[in-house]
Amino acid sequence: MIVLGVDPGSHATGYGVINTSPTMRMLEGGVIRTSSKAPLAERLHSIHEKLTDVFSRHAIEAMAVEDLFNAKNARSSLILGHARGVILLTGAQAGLEVESYAPREVKLAVTGTGSAAKEQVRFMVMRILGLKEEPPLDMSDALAVALTYKNRRIR
Amino acid sequence: MIVLGVDPGSHATGYGVINTSPTMRMLEGGVIRTSSKAPLAERLHSIHEKLTDVFSRHAIEAMAVEDLFNAKNARSSLILGHARGVILLTGAQAGLEVESYAPREVKLAVTGTGSAAKEQVRFMVMRILGLKEEPPLDMSDALAVALTYKNRRIR
Repeated sequence: MIVLGVDPGSHATGYGVINTSPTMRMLEGGVIRTSSKAPLAERLHSIHEKLTDVFSRHAIEAMAVEDLFNAKNARSSLILGHARGVILLTGAQAGLEVESYAPREVKLAVTGTGSAAKEQVRFMVMRILGLKEEPPLDMSDALAVALTYKNRRIR
Repeated sequence: MIVLGVDPGSHATGYGVINTSPTMRMLEGGVIRTSSKAPLAERLHSIHEKLTDVFSRHAIEAMAVEDLFNAKNARSSLILGHARGVILLTGAQAGLEVESYAPREVKLAVTGTGSAAKEQVRFMVMRILGLKEEPPLDMSDALAVALTYKNRRIR
């Protein structure tokens, strides 16, 4: 099964595509960065286009996005919500139901502890997927979200 | 000039299209309602499709969306942000720069006071646009956003 995981951010959105069988492996991963000088609508447009491109390269069958409940204040929640809305839209346009996981759930699924640091998450993601090169933290977080989907939904 | 105003909400998104010349008039207005039982991604998809339909019916040249800074808490900001992100995306996909106005700015532009009630805003919107029937409050708010654009940007 081909699963897309996304870690939304207002300036950097990590994504990762994994194939769960026959062996668990990464098909693609990256970080979509947008200019903080560009108007918000343009930044959202760029996230939407780049993520739509990811869908065009892989036969994605499931999608999961990190939840952002823990954002520090109403203003940052609002901005992150804009990006996350566009990300969820991309999944719905591809005909998928989109799962959401809280950061704690993702950390727990991948490292065994809900309070793991991002570096610990990255370490486990690299082990599970057999990655040789260290990915950016936004990308390893996104791969961890995809792995959480695998743990939760696929036997 | 044809201007689209939008008042985003997680369950009801008001919109209004006005033509500013030769006489100021409403071309279309309505409220996009989504089921609170549907998954968020589907609700966003529905908002995106219905707003894209509005663009297909009118040669919209400018767009303004109400800002949501005043949302009561981080969780409600986040959800409203999802809808607003998809709305801004629709404008960017149509090649428009999208203006944002705070609720106070909209009230001030239409009624002369930043603390006006929604009913006062509706009363003035009906007068300015010569509407015979009372629109829903979400729709009159959206029309007020379009009128604010007119006041601010068009001589």
